[in-house]
Amino acid sequence: MVISEDAIELRRMVADARRSRKLVGCVPTMGALHDGHISLVERARAECDFVIVTLFVNPTQFGPKEDLQKYPRPFEADCDKCRAAGVDFLFCPTADSMYPAGYSTFVEVQGLTDQWEGAVRPGHFRGVTTVVAKLLNLTQPDKAFFGQKDFQQQAVIRRMCRDLDMPTEIITCPTLRDSDGLAMSSRNVYLSPAERTSGLSLSRALLLARDKVRSGETDLRAIRLALRAEMEQTPGVSVDYATIADPDSLMELTEIAPRMVALVAARVGATRLIDNMLIP
Amino acid sequence: MVISEDAIELRRMVADARRSRKLVGCVPTMGALHDGHISLVERARAECDFVIVTLFVNPTQFGPKEDLQKYPRPFEADCDKCRAAGVDFLFCPTADSMYPAGYSTFVEVQGLTDQWEGAVRPGHFRGVTTVVAKLLNLTQPDKAFFGQKDFQQQAVIRRMCRDLDMPTEIITCPTLRDSDGLAMSSRNVYLSPAERTSGLSLSRALLLARDKVRSGETDLRAIRLALRAEMEQTPGVSVDYATIADPDSLMELTEIAPRMVALVAARVGATRLIDNMLIP
Repeated sequence: MVISEDAIELRRMVADARRSRKLVGCVPTMGALHDGHISLVERARAECDFVIVTLFVNPTQFGPKEDLQKYPRPFEADCDKCRAAGVDFLFCPTADSMYPAGYSTFVEVQGLTDQWEGAVRPGHFRGVTTVVAKLLNLTQPDKAFFGQKDFQQQAVIRRMCRDLDMPTEIITCPTLRDSDGLAMSSRNVYLSPAERTSGLSLSRALLLARDKVRSGETDLRAIRLALRAEMEQTPGVSVDYATIADPDSLMELTEIAPRMVALVAARVGATRLIDNMLIP
Repeated sequence: MVISEDAIELRRMVADARRSRKLVGCVPTMGALHDGHISLVERARAECDFVIVTLFVNPTQFGPKEDLQKYPRPFEADCDKCRAAGVDFLFCPTADSMYPAGYSTFVEVQGLTDQWEGAVRPGHFRGVTTVVAKLLNLTQPDKAFFGQKDFQQQAVIRRMCRDLDMPTEIITCPTLRDSDGLAMSSRNVYLSPAERTSGLSLSRALLLARDKVRSGETDLRAIRLALRAEMEQTPGVSVDYATIADPDSLMELTEIAPRMVALVAARVGATRLIDNMLIP
């Protein structure tokens, strides 16, 4: 496995892979890799011949009061996990090389970014779409792999790639969960044991909503209120949003639809957690 | 020469060219091709093995009161000129295929777009950078060719490609002029004979400014005023701007510098003309 911060070396190796008619796969990450990330790498490994992981804690997608400084950066462990998973190239650029002096270009997806995470975290998605455009231009993959855990993010990136005619297929992979149900996230390390228990209310609420639909409940407003209540009645949980939306437009639904996604976000202590579930 | 509006066919032929290790060149145009465009094609032909011309009158770079509807569209003549110049693929997508329902992604270069054309034509450069990003993603060229005539445009596109790590080299080619000095432009067909005579004041003013610098004038403010006066004293000419700027930042200069560009824009009757000259 090549570990490099050098875009020229990356481009050279990708060009070599392409000339050998290899399919190129890319898994963009901010590091602090957990089994969810590794499942993306395994999917890339299964579908592609040359697998790149990018590791970049992108400052422009963090708000001024967010956790950029304390975001976990276990670089050696990340390298070991990538090596074990069969990654070919671990690209870990510096912030100065990604955003040199005079940097001034931004990619923005409108509409899809207005609500939910976009409303709570102004500027977040502009940072995400800009850095992902850069990383996809640098790695030129046939396929790029994202987790369903960040549901709105994968929807926004999918839209960006389609709108800008980027030659990359976006693959969304299922959320991985710990045995207690908590969606895997690099931010889970912030949680105290008590907070972790509170955080379980997110997945519990999602399952509750899904089960209500499965058992024939048709009052979507009642389901949405139950989704929220399950979290709100849990000590230490402050709900940012709890909704049931169209999986493509992310607009809140008012009636049961064939495809729905329940989206939740809450703060537990100082930690922000998000989760989602496709219904049915 | 293949003439097609089909992005899938374009991508397939570009992929074939790449596999044959051909260098791919792209000349993005809005059609109404003149000798200036053809000089870009000839440069592409000289430097690349597979030459694509894109022909798309991009609605998003026109303001609501601009000339989108009446912009000249001599499609057959454009095809003939491309064929004669040795173009391999003429890509002429429809507006509906470029901006399908739900389109919502935009690429924006900040700073460089604040002044000059950006100030006179709000939203223009956002339309340009978005469509050029799309066209470069569709054509995946090693090199893309733009005319110096649209000086700010080539600076903005160059910045976008650098910032977003797009794998395309931007080549700027010299402005071609008619024998009377008027910079070639698809919009020159709008000019009446009298307006055309008035329009010559732009290139005359640029030459005047350049000659003043060459002859040792060091008062840049005086040169700038002369640049503007040469146009303003011409009947029927209404100056939008006349400046001498840094060729990279496009910031107006206050002192003589080793590299300068004189930029002018004016309305002559209902037609807007722009021109520029590098000094020295």
